[in-house]
Amino acid sequence: MQNTITFIHEDKQSIVTVPTGTMLSDAAQMVGIEIGQPCGGQGRCGRCAVQVTEGNVRRRSTLRLSSEDVEQGFALACQTVVEGDAAIYVPPQEKIERKLTTDRVVGEVTVPDGYDYLKDQTVRRIHLELVPPSMDDQTDDWSRLQIALKLQANISKVNISLGLLQTIGDVLRARDWKVTAVLEYPLDDEEQPARLISLQPGHIDEYSPLWGCAIDIGTTTVSVWLVDLVRGGVKAQVAEYNGQIARGEDVISRIMYAGKNGGGGELRQRVLDTINSLIETACKRVKTKPDEVVKVTVAGNSTMIHLLLGIPASNIRLSPFVTTVNHPPLMTAQEVGLKTHPQASVDCLPGVASYVGSDITAGVLSSGMNHNENVILFLDVGTNGEIVLGNRDWLVTCACSAGPAFEGAGVVNGMRATTGAIEEVWINNETFEPTYRVIGGGKPSGICGSGLISLLSEAFLTGIFDKAGNVNSMATSSRVREGAHGGEYVVTWGAESASGEDIVLSRVDVDNLLRAKAAIYAGFSVLAETVGIPLESVSKVLIGGSFGKYINIEKAVQIGLLPDKPWDQFDFLGNTSVRGAYYALLDWRKREEITGIAKSMTYIELSADNSFYEAFTSALFLPHTDMSKFPSVESALSCS
Amino acid sequence: MQNTITFIHEDKQSIVTVPTGTMLSDAAQMVGIEIGQPCGGQGRCGRCAVQVTEGNVRRRSTLRLSSEDVEQGFALACQTVVEGDAAIYVPPQEKIERKLTTDRVVGEVTVPDGYDYLKDQTVRRIHLELVPPSMDDQTDDWSRLQIALKLQANISKVNISLGLLQTIGDVLRARDWKVTAVLEYPLDDEEQPARLISLQPGHIDEYSPLWGCAIDIGTTTVSVWLVDLVRGGVKAQVAEYNGQIARGEDVISRIMYAGKNGGGGELRQRVLDTINSLIETACKRVKTKPDEVVKVTVAGNSTMIHLLLGIPASNIRLSPFVTTVNHPPLMTAQEVGLKTHPQASVDCLPGVASYVGSDITAGVLSSGMNHNENVILFLDVGTNGEIVLGNRDWLVTCACSAGPAFEGAGVVNGMRATTGAIEEVWINNETFEPTYRVIGGGKPSGICGSGLISLLSEAFLTGIFDKAGNVNSMATSSRVREGAHGGEYVVTWGAESASGEDIVLSRVDVDNLLRAKAAIYAGFSVLAETVGIPLESVSKVLIGGSFGKYINIEKAVQIGLLPDKPWDQFDFLGNTSVRGAYYALLDWRKREEITGIAKSMTYIELSADNSFYEAFTSALFLPHTDMSKFPSVESALSCS
Repeated sequence: MQNTITFIHEDKQSIVTVPTGTMLSDAAQMVGIEIGQPCGGQGRCGRCAVQVTEGNVRRRSTLRLSSEDVEQGFALACQTVVEGDAAIYVPPQEKIERKLTTDRVVGEVTVPDGYDYLKDQTVRRIHLELVPPSMDDQTDDWSRLQIALKLQANISKVNISLGLLQTIGDVLRARDWKVTAVLEYPLDDEEQPARLISLQPGHIDEYSPLWGCAIDIGTTTVSVWLVDLVRGGVKAQVAEYNGQIARGEDVISRIMYAGKNGGGGELRQRVLDTINSLIETACKRVKTKPDEVVKVTVAGNSTMIHLLLGIPASNIRLSPFVTTVNHPPLMTAQEVGLKTHPQASVDCLPGVASYVGSDITAGVLSSGMNHNENVILFLDVGTNGEIVLGNRDWLVTCACSAGPAFEGAGVVNGMRATTGAIEEVWINNETFEPTYRVIGGGKPSGICGSGLISLLSEAFLTGIFDKAGNVNSMATSSRVREGAHGGEYVVTWGAESASGEDIVLSRVDVDNLLRAKAAIYAGFSVLAETVGIPLESVSKVLIGGSFGKYINIEKAVQIGLLPDKPWDQFDFLGNTSVRGAYYALLDWRKREEITGIAKSMTYIELSADNSFYEAFTSALFLPHTDMSKFPSVESALSCS
Repeated sequence: MQNTITFIHEDKQSIVTVPTGTMLSDAAQMVGIEIGQPCGGQGRCGRCAVQVTEGNVRRRSTLRLSSEDVEQGFALACQTVVEGDAAIYVPPQEKIERKLTTDRVVGEVTVPDGYDYLKDQTVRRIHLELVPPSMDDQTDDWSRLQIALKLQANISKVNISLGLLQTIGDVLRARDWKVTAVLEYPLDDEEQPARLISLQPGHIDEYSPLWGCAIDIGTTTVSVWLVDLVRGGVKAQVAEYNGQIARGEDVISRIMYAGKNGGGGELRQRVLDTINSLIETACKRVKTKPDEVVKVTVAGNSTMIHLLLGIPASNIRLSPFVTTVNHPPLMTAQEVGLKTHPQASVDCLPGVASYVGSDITAGVLSSGMNHNENVILFLDVGTNGEIVLGNRDWLVTCACSAGPAFEGAGVVNGMRATTGAIEEVWINNETFEPTYRVIGGGKPSGICGSGLISLLSEAFLTGIFDKAGNVNSMATSSRVREGAHGGEYVVTWGAESASGEDIVLSRVDVDNLLRAKAAIYAGFSVLAETVGIPLESVSKVLIGGSFGKYINIEKAVQIGLLPDKPWDQFDFLGNTSVRGAYYALLDWRKREEITGIAKSMTYIELSADNSFYEAFTSALFLPHTDMSKFPSVESALSCS
């Protein structure tokens, strides 16, 4: 049976006819209404709630709705199916606004010392001048080109795609048999043929840029660096939220969504759209065009890489947690769907395991820890936490599912680090009155990850929350109160907030934050224990990931997220993944080094490790059950 | 400006709106009316004539129309553009009916002696049983598969396409990690990686057929042999007219048509449609499906191969006559557009030059002349004539543009060898009354190639035409008369013909036939002269091409098409091109042999050779100016 569904959204009415049983979220999509599904359509986050104003629907789950909500007609779009004609009000959706510090600024990326395009680069531009055919020499165009490559560039074997073969006849004749070829040399085996990427008429200035892209596909953010492969410099850096966010905040939600009918294709298209639009923006900035890009290197966690390539990711979340591919073969942009030169090579860097992808192997490369004599701890904290411990002789790694709490999800007033987010908080330890800084400076809408760490630390040190995360019922402040979800602390009164409602941190929120930080702490402490290295012997703690840039170390140590070590032993490296991809893009030795890192790294599966659960449970406190692990926090507490 | 064009065709009215300047043939195509353009839309054949019954059009050329035709509103659809609203009557178009003897019959093709799938075939089916992953072994699927290939099949390097990579996760798990892989081994270099073509769940019977196709793309006819690669047998043979025929009878017309806007794409699609439909028919016959076909070998003249691959063919007809590619790289069905298994390998066999393609190299292979001690002459007579002379030590080749006269084009009452064609003629040398045989047995519609040879020979021997092709005005028969195009001989009176009109052979037709046969005779005689081998020393004359099968040697010698040699020195080999493709499909050594043939053959460009014009001019007679070259004809004439 067909039913007419009328959507009201942003003061506009859209009508669609769908069969009984259609999911409301799918029906909305048909008329172009984007309903956010941060949990991937599992009915767990409640963000896709819509209001049924007329007609009937069938709710499969109302887990995140109160009975009052349901009485008022609210329904989760991802859990509700059409049963007849209906009218649906879709509330305004959270806008993802930009606040990406890398955007519009070329950061200080220095070209690696001694970069030599002719020795290091796999992609090369070659000028050729062919002998024109005549009645005495009727050699075919492709053989003639191969002979020129052999005689003038010493390339004895070369592959060509059909697409390119279709064009060479015209290109060779366009400028009197003078052409510029762009070739890709085999990476690891001289016996393998080179590959012709492009052929252009005439001789193009050999010092003019030859463009490449280093890409990091984060679960939250996609970063693209546009690089001149001839001189090695980064000429544009752009970043944007991953277009998949609306279909899940974390990798698990994305995998679930991809498993739905058509979900994998949609997610693939979404991230391709994000990447292609970033490449276009970057190219515009340097006045070139995407089809001038001839080489692309991609880093990302294993789920992101599988989704990009349209490879089912479901086995990543099912025991025994294996990927379909850790070392993807070299592909072309055309195969992958990137709108660079169709024959551009696309190199998805090798990862280690389902939850330790090429963002980490590239990160290790860019950190240089694999060349260090001393033991180093490398943390990449995003929606997942990945941890690497080791030195030039050995590397071990693990992953722990921190969840998206530090991205603001799973926390009632949590939000991403965009305009309106409280990013740092200080609490007076007598009055319990807070002072805070809001991104963009206006009225606050919620609290982002760094704000949550800061708030949790302050609330703990001032005694509002105890070690176990319970609200101190003895506190004499109207800001400390009993709320719908247990004890809570009011950071902003409704009168001062953007929405007019109080911004609070509740007991439930604290539990989510504790679980997130405990997972990471347990991760690196079990990893260190497994190899018998006490955390004290670690010479450096390197923090990668864009999240890392905003963390206040002191606060992060105070809540027990980071180990209690002297500040000068911490280093924030920013986006180590895109930087590693950049090094691999430039230099084939660096590219091989990443393969070496991926192969040599020992992966420890924490979910199979009982000691992880013990360590996790012990870390579910502020900062930890065992205060002796946090001497600086102990002394701070005794001072306050 | 938009104009409304009303077409009347086969009692149906179709209306289309097109801008001023639209070609009538294009407008007709928009409403699905196929107007044949045997000359490729050059306005030379006159077959696309339509009648303008209302409105005005602009005729660019009326070369093939009389002034009466134009007065009656006739116009060439390929040379006439829309200038306002108009009504157009499209006469019934020539139907291409089947009369392909290879169709529906598996000819007597014997599997080559000692064919051993495991030693000769590049494609192999392999059973693998993988160790399932566990928490102790989280190796990714693709690495796991590669390990199994190494350990269980000794394959250390293997490539995979993205399309296949997207499926392996599910396939590996579908039958407990038991799979059947189909791999292609590198042809010429063991250092090169193998290529995974398909992966299927479970273990498929290793003796069940593994399907391959040998294909010959002729300018007129496309032939497909479906082959069981395991046992080597040909299981189905199908053939059909090349769907490009409606856009040109010969390669030159096709190249011209392909050069028009969108023409190349259309011709590519037409031949793909023909091939794909033939593959489907062949597969149905053996109860399999096209996507079970994993290997395809293609032979064809250079123009056909260029058009199949979407490579511009224009330089083939422009001096100095070079192709874009003589040795196309190995491709996949997906790239080429064949609807077999998308990863099936497509091997377009190597050719020699613009007018000596892989139909000839494959033909030479299948003739075995390259292993013979004695000098052999190989002729492939179709719309073009290709000639090879040589033995096991050397091979020379040339091509001559015979034109499509022997396919019935360029001859007023000529037609293809389909139902209704007069295929053999005998003339009483006293009454000049003919007896003839008609394909299908009904009333004749015209004369096909073998009929023309037979008719010309009889008319010459009976004195109706003289040595120079002039009609004997002294002949006392109403059948010998002066027609619109000079003297002519009436083969069939209107009362006995299918159309009701006389079927004649005119002076102009004879000239066209003389040019065609002279080109071929001049071709092989110049070739023989160039290498200093008198035609008498040639031990065998091998005739390939489907046309060859129907030629009566005696008659062909009598008109001077074939050299005057004893009958037992002639051999008709049928379609040597598809047979050569079949041998190459089965055995990689045969495939390499074709590369060797293509490389070692010396191509003689006749258009650069003055002696060709002399030889051609001398051969523009029945049978030749120099009667001493045709002693058997001389004696036949003296007897008659």
